[in-house]
Amino acid sequence: MFIQLDSNQWNLVYNVFSLGLISMLATTVYTLVSQPRVLAKYRTALVMSSMVTFIAGYHYLRIFDSFKHASEGGKVLLDGSQDAFNEAYRYVDWLLTVPLLLVEVIAVLALAKEVSRSLIMRLVPASAAMIALGYPGEISSDQNTQVLYGVLSTLPFIYILYVLFVELGKSLDRQPAGVAETIGRLRLLLIATWGVYPIAYIFNIVGDQTASSFVTVQVGYTIADILAKCVFGLTILKIAKMKSVAEGMKDDH
Amino acid sequence: MFIQLDSNQWNLVYNVFSLGLISMLATTVYTLVSQPRVLAKYRTALVMSSMVTFIAGYHYLRIFDSFKHASEGGKVLLDGSQDAFNEAYRYVDWLLTVPLLLVEVIAVLALAKEVSRSLIMRLVPASAAMIALGYPGEISSDQNTQVLYGVLSTLPFIYILYVLFVELGKSLDRQPAGVAETIGRLRLLLIATWGVYPIAYIFNIVGDQTASSFVTVQVGYTIADILAKCVFGLTILKIAKMKSVAEGMKDDH
Repeated sequence: MFIQLDSNQWNLVYNVFSLGLISMLATTVYTLVSQPRVLAKYRTALVMSSMVTFIAGYHYLRIFDSFKHASEGGKVLLDGSQDAFNEAYRYVDWLLTVPLLLVEVIAVLALAKEVSRSLIMRLVPASAAMIALGYPGEISSDQNTQVLYGVLSTLPFIYILYVLFVELGKSLDRQPAGVAETIGRLRLLLIATWGVYPIAYIFNIVGDQTASSFVTVQVGYTIADILAKCVFGLTILKIAKMKSVAEGMKDDH
Repeated sequence: MFIQLDSNQWNLVYNVFSLGLISMLATTVYTLVSQPRVLAKYRTALVMSSMVTFIAGYHYLRIFDSFKHASEGGKVLLDGSQDAFNEAYRYVDWLLTVPLLLVEVIAVLALAKEVSRSLIMRLVPASAAMIALGYPGEISSDQNTQVLYGVLSTLPFIYILYVLFVELGKSLDRQPAGVAETIGRLRLLLIATWGVYPIAYIFNIVGDQTASSFVTVQVGYTIADILAKCVFGLTILKIAKMKSVAEGMKDDH
């Protein structure tokens, strides 16, 4: 199985992958060198964000190379063979980065130890279950299997929404001015960009894979990743700086 | 000699190797940038952990490339020739990382110099002997030789267990609250994950190498390595932070 892209489509995907790669690497360096600008207690959140973009940068390098290697004259091999485009890099990436992103949100709030622990112990297994349950549906070519695993992986996703919006909401009142709103926006960013993944998944179930659906899904995933990892990480840095200033660190911007 | 994997099996092994590689690299960066967060006396243990994951990251890069290079259409060459999949990378890795992992456990306890020295002088030669004695059995195709070296390399393994559980146990009473339990869990993690290696070794002796045994062994080794090196390293960081706080460093999470 392969799809034939025209040269504009092929170049668009290729350049968007390159954009994803350097966005991840640049954000990694930026957040790493910004560590001394926040109080020590917020550096765990920041270094986790650096790891998320570092891991995603590695995967975009692999995706970029895999796409180039699997293509010839705009024809992209998608048959799961050794020379095919390896979509599974995204699953390996999510398996590592999605739990880290959730832990980051908790870590930057610097809540009481028991509260943090309880939230993390619920969010991390739920996010791992969400991704693990999506994978069998992604690799299956049977529509019933795809729908079954699509529904199954939606259950932990709903639970994550509940924990983030109901449970976490209770802790936001005690945050300094401005922080609660920024956390609120961060939560919306997470949910809005994560929405791209089930949409792409449904796209794969209902439609035959055409050149334009392939391009839409790949470009959509990459933009979602830049928002959910780079913009997200820079927002974490902003929150960490606001909280550091609120707690007496000199505001030097 | 070669084995034929189907495309799901081949992709699983390939993606698991990639997961191993990026897990090692991300843990290396994470533990390196976390150094200022523990007292200077615990940084030796932490930087050793960074070296373990760095060395393993290098080997997973080599293993990943070797697997790709040795494969064609799911057929993996295993005849020991120049183009074959090179399993020996794992032995080179263990030869360097296993003694380092044991020294890390001792270093993070910051015991009296003589006690540390005595434990290290027993654990390091024993672990080197364990790996060196396993190698002739691994490369031999004669079952008697395999059993002989399997038994021989078990002897230093039992001695290591004795040192870790009996000798080291005596030093745990004087550790701050929480540290003794975490060290206990660390020791169990080490032993549980090391158990995968003899199981894979016996697997090779008793069974013909089939596609599914090859996949099981490679996936099993990689998961064991992620637990024994990444999760282990993050636990070392946690212990170092607990001890730093117990000794008066400001608790910044």
